[in-house]
Formats: sequence, C-alpha cells, structure tokens
Amino acid sequence: MKIGGVAYRSIWLNADGATVEVIDQTLLPHRFAIRSLMSLADAEHAIKTMIVRGAPLIGATAAYGMSLAMAADPSDSMLEEAHGCLLAARPTAVNLRWALDEMASVLRPIAPTQRKQVAYQRAAEICDEDVALNRAIGEHGLKIINGIASKKETNATINIMTHCNAGWLATVDFGTALAPIYLAHDAGLKVHVWVSETRPRNQGASLTAWELGQHGVAHTVIVDNAAGHLLRCGEVDMVIVGSDRTAANGDVCNKIGTYLKALAAKDNGVPFYVALPGPTIDWSLADGATIPIEERGALEVSHISGRNKHHGVSTVALTPQASAIANPGFDVTPARLVTGLITERGVCAASKEGLLGLYPENANGAPTTRPLSRVDKLPPRRQRARNLA
Amino acid sequence: MKIGGVAYRSIWLNADGATVEVIDQTLLPHRFAIRSLMSLADAEHAIKTMIVRGAPLIGATAAYGMSLAMAADPSDSMLEEAHGCLLAARPTAVNLRWALDEMASVLRPIAPTQRKQVAYQRAAEICDEDVALNRAIGEHGLKIINGIASKKETNATINIMTHCNAGWLATVDFGTALAPIYLAHDAGLKVHVWVSETRPRNQGASLTAWELGQHGVAHTVIVDNAAGHLLRCGEVDMVIVGSDRTAANGDVCNKIGTYLKALAAKDNGVPFYVALPGPTIDWSLADGATIPIEERGALEVSHISGRNKHHGVSTVALTPQASAIANPGFDVTPARLVTGLITERGVCAASKEGLLGLYPENANGAPTTRPLSRVDKLPPRRQRARNLA
Repeated sequence: MKIGGVAYRSIWLNADGATVEVIDQTLLPHRFAIRSLMSLADAEHAIKTMIVRGAPLIGATAAYGMSLAMAADPSDSMLEEAHGCLLAARPTAVNLRWALDEMASVLRPIAPTQRKQVAYQRAAEICDEDVALNRAIGEHGLKIINGIASKKETNATINIMTHCNAGWLATVDFGTALAPIYLAHDAGLKVHVWVSETRPRNQGASLTAWELGQHGVAHTVIVDNAAGHLLRCGEVDMVIVGSDRTAANGDVCNKIGTYLKALAAKDNGVPFYVALPGPTIDWSLADGATIPIEERGALEVSHISGRNKHHGVSTVALTPQASAIANPGFDVTPARLVTGLITERGVCAASKEGLLGLYPENANGAPTTRPLSRVDKLPPRRQRARNLA
Repeated sequence: MKIGGVAYRSIWLNADGATVEVIDQTLLPHRFAIRSLMSLADAEHAIKTMIVRGAPLIGATAAYGMSLAMAADPSDSMLEEAHGCLLAARPTAVNLRWALDEMASVLRPIAPTQRKQVAYQRAAEICDEDVALNRAIGEHGLKIINGIASKKETNATINIMTHCNAGWLATVDFGTALAPIYLAHDAGLKVHVWVSETRPRNQGASLTAWELGQHGVAHTVIVDNAAGHLLRCGEVDMVIVGSDRTAANGDVCNKIGTYLKALAAKDNGVPFYVALPGPTIDWSLADGATIPIEERGALEVSHISGRNKHHGVSTVALTPQASAIANPGFDVTPARLVTGLITERGVCAASKEGLLGLYPENANGAPTTRPLSRVDKLPPRRQRARNLA
C-alpha cells in the first residue's frame, strides 16, 4: 500500500541484498521513520520493542532475522542461537514460532555455505505468501462491498466500520480486514471507513487511521463508544474486523470491544464480517467459550502516549493512582452475530458447516472443548494467528 | 460523600456565611483543590471553565453566583446582569437556566435590602432539594441491590457496572446512578463497581473512580471496550447508569456508549437500570428517535490530558493530524433494553405506562414526535437535565 504516493510493504530487502528495512511502528502516527535491520540483534530488538507488530509481520521479521544471522555466521550453533533468541523476543506470538520453525527446518539439512542464500530466499517467500493470502481475502471481500454498492445509489459512499488494526501494517501488505477496503478503493469505489480508536492501545487511532490516510482512503476516527450510535443512525453499511483466533463453529476471538460492535450491528441489521486467513482457524476448539483471554498490563489503561507540543512523544496518567484496573485484551464474538467469514478461499457462514465447506481437509479431527493452555501446542501451520497487536 | 474520611458536598457555604466553596474538578483525579468563589465573576468563571460540571451542580453554582452578586450589589440592574452573564457561561446547560430563572423569580419582587439574605437562603434550598432528590433515588435503587444480594451467597460481592460520571461530583451530593451504590456501601453491603473510563472525556476514569475511591467503595477501571466481555463472563450483577434526558416512552438519552452497554447487558441477561430524577423526563418527546444528539468538538477525541511525570497536567495528541474526527456526545438506549427506571418516586418499567404510574400529573399532555430544537424551549421545571459532563 502507499505512503505519500509511494508503494511500500511493511518489510522489504534493501537494494544491497542484505539489509532488511522496516517501518518503525512505535513512532506512528506521529512520525514516519524506516529502520534498517543489519544483524540478528537488530531483528530481535525490532520484535521485542514492537518496532514491528502484527502476527504476520513479526513472523516475516523473524524469518529475515534468521537470514541476517546466517549472513554473519552460517554455523549450526548460530542457527540454533538465532532460533532461540528470536523466539524469546515475543514468546506469545504464534506466527513467530511458525516462521522460525519453518526457517530452521529448511536450513538445518543444508550445508552452511548455502544457508545465507537459502535463508534470504525462504524469508522472501514467506513475505510473498502472506501478501498472496491477504490479497485473496481482499478479492473475496471486494465482492461483498460490490454487492453493497450495487444496492446503493450510483456513486454513493459505502461506509465501512472497522476495529483495531487489521491493516497492511500488521501484515506484509494489504492486511486482512482492510484488504477488501484497499481493493475497493483502488478499483474506484467510494469507500469511507469509520475507524474506532480501539482503547486501550489505540491501534485504530494511531495505525489504521494513518495507513488509510497515507493510501488516500477517506476515513473518520471515532471513540469506541460512538460505534453503537453510528450503527443505529444508518451511518454504517457494513462492519469488517480481523480475528486473532476463530473456533471451529465460527466463534471469533478478536481485540477487546469487537463483541460490542457485533451486537450493535446485529441490533440494526448491518452486516458484520470477519476477515481471517485459514491458518488462524483453531480446529481443536469446538467453540469460543474455551478460548483463554489474555489479561494484559494495567499501564495500558492507566497511561497513554501521544504527540506533545514539542512534536515528541510523551506519556500521561489518566486514572487515580489508587484505583484498580482490569485489562482483558480480547473478547469472543459468538458466531450468531457474524454475517460471514472472509477467508483466502472464499466467504462462508460463521458455522462448522460453513468453515468445513471451505476447509474440507479438517473434517476428520473431532473438535474438542478442552481449553489449550497455549496456542503453541498446535501443529505449526495452525499456529499462524493474525493481528497480534 | 467522603474525601479522605471527611464528609463533603460538591458545593458549600464557608463559615463566613458569604464565600462559596467548590472542588476544582478540572484537576481531578490528579489533585484535590478547593476553590473559593467570592464574586459573581468567580462563579461565572467556575462554570465556564468546568471547575464545576454536572447539570445539578452547575445549577447550584449559578444560584450561589446570584447570591454573590446580590451581596455585592442588590440592585435590579445587577440582578439582570448576573442572570445574563451566568446563563451565558454554559448556554446548553438546562439546569443552569432553571436555577437562574428560579432565583430571579424569587428576587425580583422583593426589596433590594432583602435580596442578599433571600438569595443565599434560596440557593441553599436548591442544594438541599437536589440532595433530597438524589437520596430518594438512592433509597429506591438500594432495594434493587438488596434484592440482588439476597440471591447471592452471604457476603458475596455485588458487582455493579456504571458509565460516565453520574456521581456526587455531578450533583450536590449522592449522585444519581451512584446514589444506590453509596447507600449500599454505607449499609455494609459488599459492592464493587466496574468503572468504564468513558471516552472521549474520561469522566469515568477521572471522576467516578476518584469519588468512589475517596468514599472507600471498591472499584476497577476498565476501557469501554471491555464492558461486553465482563458482562459475558458473568462478572457483572447489574448495570446502573444516569440519563441526560428520558423520553415519555422510556427511551434513554445518556453519554455516548451507554447503548452498547445496554445491548451487552440484554444479551447476557444482566439487569440494566437507569437512575434519573423526574425533572429529566421530557414528556414532550414520544420516543428517543427525535432527541437531537450533540456533535462535540474534535479535540476531545484527537487529544487527551493526564498527569505528566512532573505531577502537572499535560495534553498529548493521539490521532494523525490529517484524519477526520466525529464526536457524537450522547446516544439513545431504546426502552426495550432497559430493565427499569429508578426515580425519586420509585422504580418503574421503561415505558409510557411505567412512567405515568409514577408521574400521573403528566397524563394530560399528549406527547408529540416533533423534535425540539433546544431543550430550553420546555417549561422551567422540565428543563432539569442531569449528568451534563
């Protein structure tokens, strides 16, 4: 997608064929800066400090981190060291483990002299695979947007609401929930996006608003509280959100607050879609009731950062110092509130039947209701969670 | 209610019998400071700069502002000047106009030499009337809390969720939505309050959390997005919110985000109550569809203030400078989502029949569906909107 008229991905190889370039997302939306990763330590630091975030982008950065390590020292010991230190950089990021295991399994069997070249090649493929997946989601979602447009007056604006950041900054390009919106915009459709700020981390206000604005997509930032009123007033034609994890019955786990938007969409007859790549479907979960919800730190709620009057970034405290704080990071939206799931293979109903229609290869394993203590107990391909903030 | 163990009202007369004392709410929750109002100009400034806020407290401050004016100069011209300048301090505050008209109607007919004494006396009565109204709401709400407690295990915590600040800081004492909670706490019931921060102005995080904490009521601050998840997980026994304006059929206009909480409460079978004083019922409105929703300034969304590391208050920007912003200040919760209305006369169903049962004197006037351009077109007594932020 574009920044100031120039096409970018969120991660790319420098013309020197060795240095990896990423956008420093900790500075957005206040400053656009590119960071050059020239070593394993640089890649580790970028993941750890959230210069890069979003599950697919973390995975891609880790794959390139392995490449940087192999360029410096292609030995077996470095291979294992790189795998270990990158994995520790963001231990709960399931895409991270998937990408590292994938790289290690390709690199271990081959001679050290070949490892640098193969590593860079596989890292580039991982990036391209992510882009292809997201583009396919975008194309299937575009059909839905076209369907909505066809029921409106010619040239009427199509108002789409989203939540959090499931955009290209969270992936290598296109994003998941925003992919259909970018394709619609690029196809000349008049789309306007309601961007809910997404407290507590404000990924909507800071990342989604920024990336939509840079690509030239009309958008309006609102507080999360305003979503219900806008849906009730007929200001929204559809909602599209991403998903961190989807149960086999179509229950959707996503950023905290998604459930409230789904309720308001349902109450007002507005279609509510979830865009998700197949690998984020957790076939081992019969429904969403057993998805463990991460309780995150209090500082995310009690404090907030923003641009100060000196154009730097400052943090201020919002709550009384003595007040307790709770901060559940995700919620579960029951399948009954979801109009459809937009995947790379097409759109389906949020139901077991709907999902198995698109992913028949998963019909064998009987889903269990046993909660997993961590998603990383799943086989590698199934671990690719999306939209990790 | 108490601050640091000492009983306070939000406005009171100094022992000198002339100076009016208020809490500077612009500094909360970061600093507790009392401001002395010694002149009409001081009262006007306190209202204009939101040192005092909340419709009943604004009205009480205006009444005392008239008293301060009469103490300095009890002439007819000063009476009209004070009325005019206080009214202009916060033109959309309907309680403000009610209190000023009430004071003027009492003061105009009497001799200037009597005006100072009568003004102070009527201002004190206006404060006492507000306290009595809120205490009555509290007592009726307490019965509901007792009913919930009786269905739980002995000594189990009763978890109550609220939104915005409908507490004693918005009134003279007790508050509306928080009055039942304070009475329950003072009666020895184990209550815990989920305080949603209430973006964009964060009255929950800054005022509700502070006043509950000072009075010793257990509470936890959450982002607004977390409300649905907590309701779904059985962490909430009841919701109580305030109301700025209630239509004759029980539709409730309140701070933006109230509707989303009502939807989530309904979806999970959790009782959702609205606490409101009779004067905020707008009998001229058949339903909530015609209540005009105020669109507030973009800066409330794009910027936020908080305690900086030097213990002062700083403002930071949150959104991209080029992004559009929408900021509807209120939403309408349809009566079908409201379990009951808690008024000073008792609890009733959120319906025309329910409301007329408590306020039979309003059975005559046939409600209209005509939208009012401003609530100040209503007769004075009906103008007393509550919880104005």
